[in-house]
Amino acid sequence: MGLAYPYTVYRGTFIHLPRLESSSGTPELIRNQGVMWVSSSDGRIKGSDWKVTDDASFQSFLSSHGWSDANSTTSGSGTEVQVVQSDDERNEFFFPGFIDSHIHAPQFPNIGLFGSSGLLDWLNEYTFPMEASFGSKSDPENKQTDPKDTPPEGLRVYDEVVARTLAHGTTTASYFATIHVPATNALAKLCQIHGQRAFIGRVCMDNHDQCPSYYVDQSAEEGFNATIRTIDYIQKLDPTGKLINPIVTPRFAPSCSNASLDGLGKLAASYDPPLYIQTHISESTDEVALVQQLFPESSSYADVYDKANLLTNRTILAHGVHLTKDERTLIRERGSKVAHCPASNSALGSGLAPVRILLDDGLDVGLGTDVSGGYSPSILEVCRQACLVSRLLQFSSEYQDMTGNKSTNGTEKLSVEDSLYLATRGGASVVDMPNDIGGFDQGMIWDAQLIELGAVQNSTTSPLDATPVNSIARRGYVDGPGPVGNVDLFGNETWQEQVQKWMWSGDDRNVKFVWVNGVLVHTRE
Amino acid sequence: MGLAYPYTVYRGTFIHLPRLESSSGTPELIRNQGVMWVSSSDGRIKGSDWKVTDDASFQSFLSSHGWSDANSTTSGSGTEVQVVQSDDERNEFFFPGFIDSHIHAPQFPNIGLFGSSGLLDWLNEYTFPMEASFGSKSDPENKQTDPKDTPPEGLRVYDEVVARTLAHGTTTASYFATIHVPATNALAKLCQIHGQRAFIGRVCMDNHDQCPSYYVDQSAEEGFNATIRTIDYIQKLDPTGKLINPIVTPRFAPSCSNASLDGLGKLAASYDPPLYIQTHISESTDEVALVQQLFPESSSYADVYDKANLLTNRTILAHGVHLTKDERTLIRERGSKVAHCPASNSALGSGLAPVRILLDDGLDVGLGTDVSGGYSPSILEVCRQACLVSRLLQFSSEYQDMTGNKSTNGTEKLSVEDSLYLATRGGASVVDMPNDIGGFDQGMIWDAQLIELGAVQNSTTSPLDATPVNSIARRGYVDGPGPVGNVDLFGNETWQEQVQKWMWSGDDRNVKFVWVNGVLVHTRE
Repeated sequence: MGLAYPYTVYRGTFIHLPRLESSSGTPELIRNQGVMWVSSSDGRIKGSDWKVTDDASFQSFLSSHGWSDANSTTSGSGTEVQVVQSDDERNEFFFPGFIDSHIHAPQFPNIGLFGSSGLLDWLNEYTFPMEASFGSKSDPENKQTDPKDTPPEGLRVYDEVVARTLAHGTTTASYFATIHVPATNALAKLCQIHGQRAFIGRVCMDNHDQCPSYYVDQSAEEGFNATIRTIDYIQKLDPTGKLINPIVTPRFAPSCSNASLDGLGKLAASYDPPLYIQTHISESTDEVALVQQLFPESSSYADVYDKANLLTNRTILAHGVHLTKDERTLIRERGSKVAHCPASNSALGSGLAPVRILLDDGLDVGLGTDVSGGYSPSILEVCRQACLVSRLLQFSSEYQDMTGNKSTNGTEKLSVEDSLYLATRGGASVVDMPNDIGGFDQGMIWDAQLIELGAVQNSTTSPLDATPVNSIARRGYVDGPGPVGNVDLFGNETWQEQVQKWMWSGDDRNVKFVWVNGVLVHTRE
Repeated sequence: MGLAYPYTVYRGTFIHLPRLESSSGTPELIRNQGVMWVSSSDGRIKGSDWKVTDDASFQSFLSSHGWSDANSTTSGSGTEVQVVQSDDERNEFFFPGFIDSHIHAPQFPNIGLFGSSGLLDWLNEYTFPMEASFGSKSDPENKQTDPKDTPPEGLRVYDEVVARTLAHGTTTASYFATIHVPATNALAKLCQIHGQRAFIGRVCMDNHDQCPSYYVDQSAEEGFNATIRTIDYIQKLDPTGKLINPIVTPRFAPSCSNASLDGLGKLAASYDPPLYIQTHISESTDEVALVQQLFPESSSYADVYDKANLLTNRTILAHGVHLTKDERTLIRERGSKVAHCPASNSALGSGLAPVRILLDDGLDVGLGTDVSGGYSPSILEVCRQACLVSRLLQFSSEYQDMTGNKSTNGTEKLSVEDSLYLATRGGASVVDMPNDIGGFDQGMIWDAQLIELGAVQNSTTSPLDATPVNSIARRGYVDGPGPVGNVDLFGNETWQEQVQKWMWSGDDRNVKFVWVNGVLVHTRE
């Protein structure tokens, strides 16, 4: 679908958030109604026409381009194009796909399993054993690169995580895999099969003091060579890098030797264009203290990465909960980006990230699920958590110390618009694709989702006349005449309020179709 | 269903949390497999047999009671009983129904609409206009008591909120209605029609300085008389009080004159047994300051209610975010209960309630959605938020001041078991029914839900062999062979881990059936 015809014409309601000139601006939702058309050759938006308001003007529009609707029974003359419509009666609209700028694919089976532990305990108790299981038993040294050497369980997990995130409207994901080459390559291959835009990182971790003996790169050099094998595989898999890209992934400073950090910085810089880089920074206070202890020669956590040339304008830093002013300045100067992961930060008790301060300091911020520190693969859930955490920030002693005041002015609170901006435009900047994805500007790639909120319920019979038997009603499903999932519309909402209701109550049931590069990659039905 | 036969036999897997001797104990999930039987005459559990493990022992069990399965094709001799089975292959289990100890039914259409305002602004901007719309235009003085005098929109809202909360497994709800008598009575009637256990409160608010002119009791006496009319209606509707009960509902101290507070305290005490009471306490710091200003003669917010004899052992106090030690002591001495509403407290930026301190101080605590300060009608969502907020509590300066220490010992963190206990046993105590609902003890009422997590996915083909076309898979729906909703099982989870995954990822899709008083009141299909 989408490839058999030279163009796909999307008709109906389009909602997105125009790009802000500066990260500290106030995002605004914009709605347009009419048509946009996307070329099948490159998946990009070639034009829009907001004067197309009814069937007659739509036919004129098609004729003026020399097109006819391939699905229409009254076939016109002209080149056949595909037409995809949103249904106003069902309160449907096109929205940019979500960008998950930080997710650990192998941890997906651990979703919801935390104990009550903090970050460092949780890594040892839950995360490392799960990640270790992605190694091929026949390949203890990870010399092979064939994805099929991945254990069947690992393949199943990766298949599920890609399908699940797509089902939640995630069109782009920046994945941490494991240390294993075959399994990392398998994740890349599965993203290609599913059609999800992805950055795939083999995790580097060679500090034997900080990593478990059963799950560690034997040396910096071994990790380095294994990483190159995944880069080679991925660049052969998608030579254009149009869908799948490798990303250099030192796990985080405590997991890596200085030799490894330095080598990975050089490795990324040795490609043209330089490779993407992702890692963690300043997630929990225990971790920050550990980094100070392990890297006494560095002035800060961010400085550890900077000394290794790992802070580039294609670097994604996950979390950034407890960054100092100096670190924020350094990160901005280097052009590195931050993936805000509030669901994870709350679940692991890592802290409350002061997102507004990061934005006001000029940093690019996107959202990450951080599965399975985060308990949900849904970026919409992360939007909710970003709003909630921002409203609790005023109570944080750390935040009060930062602002020098116990009473806040409220600017730290993120609105629905702020959160949705971070989920789309913000994420696009974080993966260094601000001109390609995250919105519906002409020339951008059609990475999009069709959201269906469902119809307003209008019953003519009084519920007081109901009997117990027929009050046993099906609720919350997609094939009924009323609401879809948990978004309840009563008919008096503005379109902006409909979007607010979607952010607070929506889930994967509201995601009807998902496209990446103009190709349909997920359908709910 | 459930009434045509003298007994219903539930067969399969039962999970609940046994009652703790003290609120400061550590809850534990318990799983039993076998049968429980419930009498249709009173909806109570008459017995259980955990030795019934297979079809043969089940037939022996039926025979020994002189029963036969009404649905069995090979009809045996004996009295026919209904049999309801949970399906192990689908990872189904029976769980006690949830108790929502604080919810505003008329605010349901405002779910997800907050602006970025705090409590007091939000009341004026969103809440009061919505609640005012439940008044009958033909009845400006609210003299009538006929539920049918409710505006059609109001009836539709109340019908939806009852159906929705049931769909999320809420078997008991303590509702705030509005000031309007017909609409309050309509809510009671609709709960009866749907079969939901409910406490229905006409909201009292007669302080003209603090309430909008369009939505206020004209005098304490008028509010008093209107309240009595709803009590009369509800007690006639359900003379036994087995399903529906009135609850005296001063909105919160700032909304009420001293005359109104005193009168309502006396009114509740004048019934035998005394009527239930519900109100708000100490939700936001602005509100606490306002109460100090409005009631200078009282030593604390709790003292305002105590002076009016509103702190009884059948009183539900919503929120309690910022209670002082003296207030906690007073509330415990009076035996009043607290409804913890973390989703609302975070969404409105009200604060982080120190639940462990409340429990350790001997208070009974349950959970409330606080729709629409809370953005979800799901108590399972509130369980998640209770866990999340408890893990952020360590960062709260108010909490650090309470404990006198910036580093916490971690006991403030709520586990999955803690949250599910609050949602069931805790809520049962809050509505003063600890011996009747919230668990599966013999003699308790069958208020329960059948949870379906879905099957473990086992594919024999490698996902690497998939093509883009067949990778467009339906995910997250109830009628597929694999997972239900967002709970993903991989087959290696313990049953306790399955429950954890349910709490973190579950939603209404996982609620297959709901019973109240032994009667089936909701079915998902």
